[in-house]
Amino acid sequence: MKRFLDLADFSREEILDLLALARRLEEHPEPRALAGKILGLVFFNPSLRTLSSFQVGMMRLGGQSFVITPGQGTWQLETRTGAIMNGAAAEHVREGLPVLASYADALGIRAFAEGKDLRHDLAETNFKAMSSVVDKPLINLESAMNHPCQALADWKTLEDLRVPQRAKFVLTWANHPRVTPLAVPAATVHMAAQRGMEVVVLRPEGFALPPEIMDKARAAAAASGGSVRETNDRSEALNGAHVVYAKEWGSTTHYGDSVGDATLRAGLTDWCVRENWFSKSASDCKFMHCLPVRRNVAVADEVLDGPRSVVQREAHNRLPAQMAVLHRMLSNGGAER
Amino acid sequence: MKRFLDLADFSREEILDLLALARRLEEHPEPRALAGKILGLVFFNPSLRTLSSFQVGMMRLGGQSFVITPGQGTWQLETRTGAIMNGAAAEHVREGLPVLASYADALGIRAFAEGKDLRHDLAETNFKAMSSVVDKPLINLESAMNHPCQALADWKTLEDLRVPQRAKFVLTWANHPRVTPLAVPAATVHMAAQRGMEVVVLRPEGFALPPEIMDKARAAAAASGGSVRETNDRSEALNGAHVVYAKEWGSTTHYGDSVGDATLRAGLTDWCVRENWFSKSASDCKFMHCLPVRRNVAVADEVLDGPRSVVQREAHNRLPAQMAVLHRMLSNGGAER
Amino acid sequence: MKRFLDLADFSREEILDLLALARRLEEHPEPRALAGKILGLVFFNPSLRTLSSFQVGMMRLGGQSFVITPGQGTWQLETRTGAIMNGAAAEHVREGLPVLASYADALGIRAFAEGKDLRHDLAETNFKAMSSVVDKPLINLESAMNHPCQALADWKTLEDLRVPQRAKFVLTWANHPRVTPLAVPAATVHMAAQRGMEVVVLRPEGFALPPEIMDKARAAAAASGGSVRETNDRSEALNGAHVVYAKEWGSTTHYGDSVGDATLRAGLTDWCVRENWFSKSASDCKFMHCLPVRRNVAVADEVLDGPRSVVQREAHNRLPAQMAVLHRMLSNGGAER
Repeated sequence: MKRFLDLADFSREEILDLLALARRLEEHPEPRALAGKILGLVFFNPSLRTLSSFQVGMMRLGGQSFVITPGQGTWQLETRTGAIMNGAAAEHVREGLPVLASYADALGIRAFAEGKDLRHDLAETNFKAMSSVVDKPLINLESAMNHPCQALADWKTLEDLRVPQRAKFVLTWANHPRVTPLAVPAATVHMAAQRGMEVVVLRPEGFALPPEIMDKARAAAAASGGSVRETNDRSEALNGAHVVYAKEWGSTTHYGDSVGDATLRAGLTDWCVRENWFSKSASDCKFMHCLPVRRNVAVADEVLDGPRSVVQREAHNRLPAQMAVLHRMLSNGGAER
Repeated sequence: MKRFLDLADFSREEILDLLALARRLEEHPEPRALAGKILGLVFFNPSLRTLSSFQVGMMRLGGQSFVITPGQGTWQLETRTGAIMNGAAAEHVREGLPVLASYADALGIRAFAEGKDLRHDLAETNFKAMSSVVDKPLINLESAMNHPCQALADWKTLEDLRVPQRAKFVLTWANHPRVTPLAVPAATVHMAAQRGMEVVVLRPEGFALPPEIMDKARAAAAASGGSVRETNDRSEALNGAHVVYAKEWGSTTHYGDSVGDATLRAGLTDWCVRENWFSKSASDCKFMHCLPVRRNVAVADEVLDGPRSVVQREAHNRLPAQMAVLHRMLSNGGAER
Repeated sequence: MKRFLDLADFSREEILDLLALARRLEEHPEPRALAGKILGLVFFNPSLRTLSSFQVGMMRLGGQSFVITPGQGTWQLETRTGAIMNGAAAEHVREGLPVLASYADALGIRAFAEGKDLRHDLAETNFKAMSSVVDKPLINLESAMNHPCQALADWKTLEDLRVPQRAKFVLTWANHPRVTPLAVPAATVHMAAQRGMEVVVLRPEGFALPPEIMDKARAAAAASGGSVRETNDRSEALNGAHVVYAKEWGSTTHYGDSVGDATLRAGLTDWCVRENWFSKSASDCKFMHCLPVRRNVAVADEVLDGPRSVVQREAHNRLPAQMAVLHRMLSNGGAER
């Protein structure tokens, strides 16, 4: 595997193979599989799970890693092509990233959406400007519109919990004090569709996912036998749900307009997932969230601390899922296999 | 050992055993003792010695570590139970810490006192909110009222220097431009008492240590045959002292009141330890300080650069002392023993 | 090797030996040469290449490292002797650095020029205050007036490209939005002179390198058979050039005067290296820059993206060049040799 940028680059069977490898590494650790291999991790944005689980994943496989945080200990990096660099950025990604790639055996890059221009972000303009100058194996640690590592871990969580392939999977919008990106909802709706689930996107007016995201998920559903639809009818959406996956995201009708977005969400404080949301769901309906989560704004304590929450398992699954990616990407197929 | 949170959780003999292990590791390195073991280090506050010595300690024992700094590269974390998280913190410790614990074999956490409410800080409210959600081995890297790693290193320093068990140990307040926490004075007075020393706390009016701290130290002294008293009479305190341990801390009568504290300490600029403080001490009286120290505010250059200062030995002893803790906590008792 | 602080501390032959070791390590990796060895890296200033290449260099040789960034996760450190520390710095380098040295097998320190007083910076006052308290092997990761790791990598690049020893090497000033230090131009002019090249420093009025820097380079040229001169005549300088090395630096006639410096450089926007600069150079004239570089301010895209640019090779050479230094400094000459 040369690049892990988007689950859509892989067939359903290839994903299931990766998850089988993840499970094998859980059961049969390979503490020398990546001996001598070095992963460079570049974080343009904050991280807790990604930052720690990739470092630990390399360690558990016998490899090593280093972390670069532009703007914190390292120069701010420019991504725009042709920029006249007389501002805050001291270096361009066209210089910085190939240098890091030349030191490492693989790179991972996190760069959130700019959140100004939906076209720009949907096109993954910034991430593509970066990936195009890296000639080593590359992992998307969350880009403007994707978070494949989270999606892979979430798929593993669904398998671990033996959630039926055709089960009803509700991705629901949740409130947040600020505008947040579309990366996780986009990756999640696609993942559930690619797994073959009955996917319902539940969101208030003004927060519909862009057609490009919905169409991509529908294409995945068509291939896997699943379905994807959207609604703003909470009761209908939750009826019979096997999984409720909550995520905060910014208004798509007011993209780049933080005042308009704030006006919209001011009336949406009831989009905090509470236990009474689950009255019409399946009796053992699971609650998922990628974390970080703002307690009692997006999700109530009672849900996060209750028995249906599997957020810790999701977060933990980042480790074995990513170890499978790293193993597939960097292992020599050496003595340990 | 499952937790290393407070020297008071261990008997005097258990501490001496730990120090013997520290010495053994100095003389007979075990570079594979913690092979495959991973320590997660979470720093809510700045660090130099703790940050570097724990990383190096793991390396010297063949293990590895990773560092998480909430607010710098990682989300700010909320600690309050039941908080409605619409402020700066994007994640709650109830989510973040169990995730990190699930990746690692042990965690260390540093979280200083809030410095607003003495009851809150004395109760270790924040640290307990964190330790209660971590089910892996846990090390206190300095909490509101404790710094057991520093205390263990200081105890080792006293042993290294063959300071008699019953020697006079003076913990003296020292000046500082700002309010600083009670963690080190609380840990130090307890450590010296538990070791069985004649402990005198020398401090100006307004800076008496809280009764809870003094009572805990007196209980330790009662068990070890030592004693603990306090005074504001510098001459009497220093008379015959074998060790002077300087530390800055905030006013306890004006806790949480930085203006009142500043007014108090404005008249206390002579609480900068100088060589003439030692005229009535034992001839080879040692000078200790946990570092960092503000030269010529808390302690004069002449003392820090002079022959009685053992601050470098104290700081270096962080490494073997903590290696003993890590070894006791994480070693399999494998081939190296 | 106990210290790597300045190429001038080594003979031309010793440098060539180091470069031969660098090449040997490229061709015959020694993944256990520094097993058990730990490098402490202290960064008072931002870094991308130095930060990552030293970590990777230790990893590739089987060693390990840790990073300390004063002011970011670690206390701000004071360097002035005799300071009354009632400001922002919580700790003095006289305490902090010996502590770090006592944990590690070697230290690297980066501390840029203060940029206020040219005498102070030329004397390396701050770096000497630090190096004087470190009794372990020490590497200069860039000081006020030196950057020996960059110079060594650049020398290696010249060898890799088989640039003739006596070739014409033009160090040209380039524009930048702000004042930047003299460390790289000082190290570069000395390196090229020590290699025996025909060195021309091309710079506008107000940006002449200080006599101390030029005299040191001329002494090196005298020993190696090279030459060093300076000019503000771009056409003459570039005529027949085999290598053009661009670097931004602050005005030396207005050192410490950012307004005066800005006034000077306002009229110098044509000091952005463009392809038409090379019309009179040798046909395969190479373009060098240490990075980071501000595109279209210091150097045009067309040069950086064109075939004469060797900036990626320079940056990559940081790794093998520094691995040679680390190997010479820390290797036991053990089983791998």
